[in-house]
Amino acid sequence: MRVALGVEYDGRGFCGWQTQPAGCGVQDALQRSLARIAGHEVDVVCAGRTDAGVHARGQVVHFDTFAERPETAWTRGVNASLPDGVSVLWARPVDDAFHARFDARARAYRYTILVRSARPALEHGRVGWWPTELDLECMCDAAEHLVGTHDFSAFRAAECQARSPVRTLEALRIRRRGELLFFDLRANAFLHHMVRNIVGSLVYVGAGRRPAEWIRAILESRDRRLAAPTFAPDGLCLQAVYYDAKLGLPVSDS
Amino acid sequence: MRVALGVEYDGRGFCGWQTQPAGCGVQDALQRSLARIAGHEVDVVCAGRTDAGVHARGQVVHFDTFAERPETAWTRGVNASLPDGVSVLWARPVDDAFHARFDARARAYRYTILVRSARPALEHGRVGWWPTELDLECMCDAAEHLVGTHDFSAFRAAECQARSPVRTLEALRIRRRGELLFFDLRANAFLHHMVRNIVGSLVYVGAGRRPAEWIRAILESRDRRLAAPTFAPDGLCLQAVYYDAKLGLPVSDS
Repeated sequence: MRVALGVEYDGRGFCGWQTQPAGCGVQDALQRSLARIAGHEVDVVCAGRTDAGVHARGQVVHFDTFAERPETAWTRGVNASLPDGVSVLWARPVDDAFHARFDARARAYRYTILVRSARPALEHGRVGWWPTELDLECMCDAAEHLVGTHDFSAFRAAECQARSPVRTLEALRIRRRGELLFFDLRANAFLHHMVRNIVGSLVYVGAGRRPAEWIRAILESRDRRLAAPTFAPDGLCLQAVYYDAKLGLPVSDS
Repeated sequence: MRVALGVEYDGRGFCGWQTQPAGCGVQDALQRSLARIAGHEVDVVCAGRTDAGVHARGQVVHFDTFAERPETAWTRGVNASLPDGVSVLWARPVDDAFHARFDARARAYRYTILVRSARPALEHGRVGWWPTELDLECMCDAAEHLVGTHDFSAFRAAECQARSPVRTLEALRIRRRGELLFFDLRANAFLHHMVRNIVGSLVYVGAGRRPAEWIRAILESRDRRLAAPTFAPDGLCLQAVYYDAKLGLPVSDS
């Protein structure tokens, strides 16, 4: 049978989502703990591979097992042996045709920046940092140029393996709470480093280094060299993955 | 001259505020970094000593120095050699009579609980955890019994060294945001473990194990054995310390 899981993790303790020979990926930790419950080796497929240092509140994965276990075995049972920085939030039996990655209709990422002169301590590793004021209105104006279906080559990492650079950015919302700035992006899918590259360029606009229209110019150029540097992984979090509502999978509220 | 600092720290990496022979206290880290800037040994006095695993957004300290340095030396300069989990937010020259602890008019602590079935991963070490629903209204009713000037012996640790168990709890506000519950307490001063003991007892009420009036009964009993167990340090944070406004010291907004 196939089982889907909702997974939360703190990216700080891991070398990224993907399995590594050293066993330091979130996937490795999860596969080890699932194998203990299943009684056999388990291969896990995720909706969105996250880089080293990137977090998740709403990662979704699937795996196949011969073991018949109650749902609590795949949540509380698995959590009992997972490291502190990973927690299974829910488990659901799904159809054998379900695929965590290919069936995902959309993903939501949040990037959080602490805006203040002193570097983060309590939120170290959990937020990006900018030491001077950022103009929220300018960044919102700039963000409007990005919403919609575009060729996002200008915001794509050199090593990105996606066949097409075209993505549909359904929403890009920026808001402030105290010293924190939240960038909430939702798209059908994201290119490698796309969120961190977009945030880096929006911060250039917010800091007054570039006008809002510059964002449109770099988008249209499709030239990665024109955009701002990639922002740190620390502030990035995979908030939610969306599937056909008929599947009835829980969605983490962000 | 005497200098006051606002300090933020993540209690996870330290054995508490206070200096220890092993050098693992937040105070030790801060004194080492201040000494590098001052060019001489530095003794730091804080407004509120926090236990191992307890965090601070708005700790206030003072120290004496012969060195004349610009304010940025005591912030950015000190932060350059502090561990990632500590950050100096501001520095102000103060009168030689100023005392971070004795001059404090009030302290504000926040206790955060994650209420959901799965244990915390992203917020591990930063929040307390309760796996089942808590009745907010019942807890608010119970909290009302605690506000005011009382003998808080029932919520005091056995090892508490305060001369008097009487404290004035100026405010106790409980609110929910998503899966998080925030307990915000403000008092002239707190007894050892007072916040964690109060939260532990309020959670018993929220979980339906005790009625709201039970809080008044244990308060009046002055008997620690009647209250609920001390809640974990993870969710506790010293949010702010308040001084006479004439001093003009910054207050962290929580």
